[in-house]
Amino acid sequence: MRDALVAAAFRLFLERGYEQTTVDDIVALAGVGRRSFFRYFPSKEDVVFPDHERCLADMTDFLASGDGTEEPVGRVCDAARLVLRMYAENPTFSVQRYRLTKKVPGLRAYELSVVWRYERALAEYLRARFAGRRDGTLQADVIAAAVVAAHNNALRSWLRSDGQGDASATVDHALGYVQSAFGTAPPAPLVEQPEDVVVVVSRRGAPLWRVVQEIETTLGRD
Amino acid sequence: MRDALVAAAFRLFLERGYEQTTVDDIVALAGVGRRSFFRYFPSKEDVVFPDHERCLADMTDFLASGDGTEEPVGRVCDAARLVLRMYAENPTFSVQRYRLTKKVPGLRAYELSVVWRYERALAEYLRARFAGRRDGTLQADVIAAAVVAAHNNALRSWLRSDGQGDASATVDHALGYVQSAFGTAPPAPLVEQPEDVVVVVSRRGAPLWRVVQEIETTLGRD
Repeated sequence: MRDALVAAAFRLFLERGYEQTTVDDIVALAGVGRRSFFRYFPSKEDVVFPDHERCLADMTDFLASGDGTEEPVGRVCDAARLVLRMYAENPTFSVQRYRLTKKVPGLRAYELSVVWRYERALAEYLRARFAGRRDGTLQADVIAAAVVAAHNNALRSWLRSDGQGDASATVDHALGYVQSAFGTAPPAPLVEQPEDVVVVVSRRGAPLWRVVQEIETTLGRD
Repeated sequence: MRDALVAAAFRLFLERGYEQTTVDDIVALAGVGRRSFFRYFPSKEDVVFPDHERCLADMTDFLASGDGTEEPVGRVCDAARLVLRMYAENPTFSVQRYRLTKKVPGLRAYELSVVWRYERALAEYLRARFAGRRDGTLQADVIAAAVVAAHNNALRSWLRSDGQGDASATVDHALGYVQSAFGTAPPAPLVEQPEDVVVVVSRRGAPLWRVVQEIETTLGRD
């Protein structure tokens, strides 16, 4: 019945417009009573975003399920990917909703409050992981905001392309930018990966023999 | 008259609560008609945030006033400082509003939409500055979100301390974190600053003579 209500609502929103559709119209088309509607959806706005509550719960569960040793920035990026997956499960519906939301200011406001709740979930996780760290809450808030912005930039770009293309790859690329700015993956140990890159930093004024000595040591050649 | 309306509104909001205060109550206390209220404020919510429109306009003007050579991340940080300044101009009012906004969900939603508009202003500026750059819009959106999150983290911490302490220093510190993650100060030209740092990146497998040649070239020694 829940799915039938969503389907009826979207059919009317697209035919008549969101503002011109009442809850009575929706329940009439779905063939159910008003009570049934409000059992599933607190308001007309909620029927536009029927899966966010479940997705928020999934995100919270996912973040709580770690053993606390995961790299934190990567972990919140993975949590953000749950949102993308929800959108990508049903491209046609997601694209329709995107177009609808752009046109209706009330839905934009609703969406902002949903995005805020995702951002808070990520920030709370990071705050806990960064507890005791100097500037832990600052870093948590900034990284959570950056992850959400990157995710949404990629999501919008996919939605604007009418759900064509590889949504996951687009989001991975966007989240990669955030991870490169804030990521704390430990550097690969030099000895075990002989083909990796060596970086030598030197003051310009240092004598050349000193620089060469430094490189020789780093490269492990005497 | 505008200030009198704001003062009357806040006196009533604090005495009776926001929801329990009507526009009629506010105009009665201020001794003006309803029309005067709506000339200044489209809705009751707007009287809670009387300075954001001016601040948004100031921010847009500030961002448009550059000559396009400013370091972009520093520039949006400076733009965000305009918001802080607005709050810091009147600490008592800002703290009262902070407490009110925390209690009233409708005001939280309004505030989210205001924050979103600030973030878009910063992102639009960065998008223009990063035009033609690969991933320019992605970087613009992420950096704008990070700047807003850092600013708001610092602002909230100052508001929670009842407006005690140095708001500017707190915000500077928070924005410094974003600048350290994303700052794009152009590298100093090699020739003109002989004391700067030289970075040489080399594949570990590269022959030593090739690495030394590279360093000699970089250092400008033949």
